Amino acid sequence: MSHKLILLRHGESVWNSKNLFTGWVDVPLSEKGVEEAKNAGKLFKETGITPDILYTSLLRRAINTANLALDEADLLWIPVKRSWHLNERHYGDLQGKNKTEIRDEYGEEQFMIWRRSYDVPPPEISADSAYSQLSDPRYNCVNPPVKTEALKNVLDRALPFLKTEVFADLKAGKTVLLTAHGNSIRAIVKYLDGISDEEITGVNIPTGIPLLYELDDDFKVIGKRYLDPAAAEESIKAVANQGKK
Amino acid sequence: MSHKLILLRHGESVWNSKNLFTGWVDVPLSEKGVEEAKNAGKLFKETGITPDILYTSLLRRAINTANLALDEADLLWIPVKRSWHLNERHYGDLQGKNKTEIRDEYGEEQFMIWRRSYDVPPPEISADSAYSQLSDPRYNCVNPPVKTEALKNVLDRALPFLKTEVFADLKAGKTVLLTAHGNSIRAIVKYLDGISDEEITGVNIPTGIPLLYELDDDFKVIGKRYLDPAAAEESIKAVANQGKK
Repeated sequence: MSHKLILLRHGESVWNSKNLFTGWVDVPLSEKGVEEAKNAGKLFKETGITPDILYTSLLRRAINTANLALDEADLLWIPVKRSWHLNERHYGDLQGKNKTEIRDEYGEEQFMIWRRSYDVPPPEISADSAYSQLSDPRYNCVNPPVKTEALKNVLDRALPFLKTEVFADLKAGKTVLLTAHGNSIRAIVKYLDGISDEEITGVNIPTGIPLLYELDDDFKVIGKRYLDPAAAEESIKAVANQGKK
Repeated sequence: MSHKLILLRHGESVWNSKNLFTGWVDVPLSEKGVEEAKNAGKLFKETGITPDILYTSLLRRAINTANLALDEADLLWIPVKRSWHLNERHYGDLQGKNKTEIRDEYGEEQFMIWRRSYDVPPPEISADSAYSQLSDPRYNCVNPPVKTEALKNVLDRALPFLKTEVFADLKAGKTVLLTAHGNSIRAIVKYLDGISDEEITGVNIPTGIPLLYELDDDFKVIGKRYLDPAAAEESIKAVANQGKK
């Protein structure tokens, strides 16, 4: 028996289009993002892939992407589990700052280290930053509190959650939809596909296009495909160009 | 210590405004219903009442009311539990039919019996009705399948769920938001307030206005208030006039 895990990166947010580092800042979807989410729901309908259970991060751009997609697919009623373990990477002190300005100020090399190094996190966010979540009640359960993360840190919190909670639902025969973020999905893809620390930083995840993994009983990958392969390719190119002048 | 339970009836659906019996038919919110839901979220913000956990039925008009309200209140991230036990009353063979036409065809007395008697259900829906949910996968777990309900039947399924699942969360100190329907909320109100079988049929629940119960450790009512009392009174009058020419 194969297990079905669907990864869905949220649609464009109002900050994606402004070219800002977002991380844990809880910004809403843009109008384009809303359309991307609805389109993901149409893809569920067209392909006959029907999730039995939904996982989301604690951020509204992921939650609303899932809600819009599932409403479109007539599946808004399925059970839901939410966890900060699926949140976007915390961008530390870069949160709320413009990608192009950071690049101009610190140079291409430092910019790319912060954006894409596997284990070098940006400077920690301070508690008095307007873009800190250190006093946000939704993260009361997170101890120690998160102040910045590299991709490695995202793996350290996302993978134990994947292997316990998500795998248990897959084992029970459920098709799981996991709606999350560029870096939390990258963490999961790195694990499932066995991608190296160096190569994962070059992997781009398209927004709003469900990525279906079929896994065997040991959770090894049997198959992998986007529900709209042509659109996925276009989107990957667009994400890769983010932050370029 | 007092426990906080907030009941929220969904905003207007596209069928409310068309004067049709809805029941388990999964119709969306109308534009007015969307505004009502957002307004409920504003009331949470203004009054400082912050739900810790959400319960919904399996119907999109309740789920989207909750989602829109919680997004407005910056609380979309709270945990969610869904159950058919909180669904609207199943209206049997009346589902999809016009209230005024049913009234004209069967007369005022039969109309009021079907609409408001405590324990006389409408005729059962047939499996080949366009408005049957007998082959809807979301109700696979419901055995025997529901084909019609009187208000009494709603109590029989909603109250055991309330007393186990919902009360356990209240006991754990959580403020619970329960977003449901006219009759499932009426069932809960009947139980909490100790209203008689005769009197409950005259109780109207306003749409889109959170109703806050404060309960003691034995779940006896200490206090009860709408978060917008003036609007609640207006809405109750409007609901009472439904189906009248």
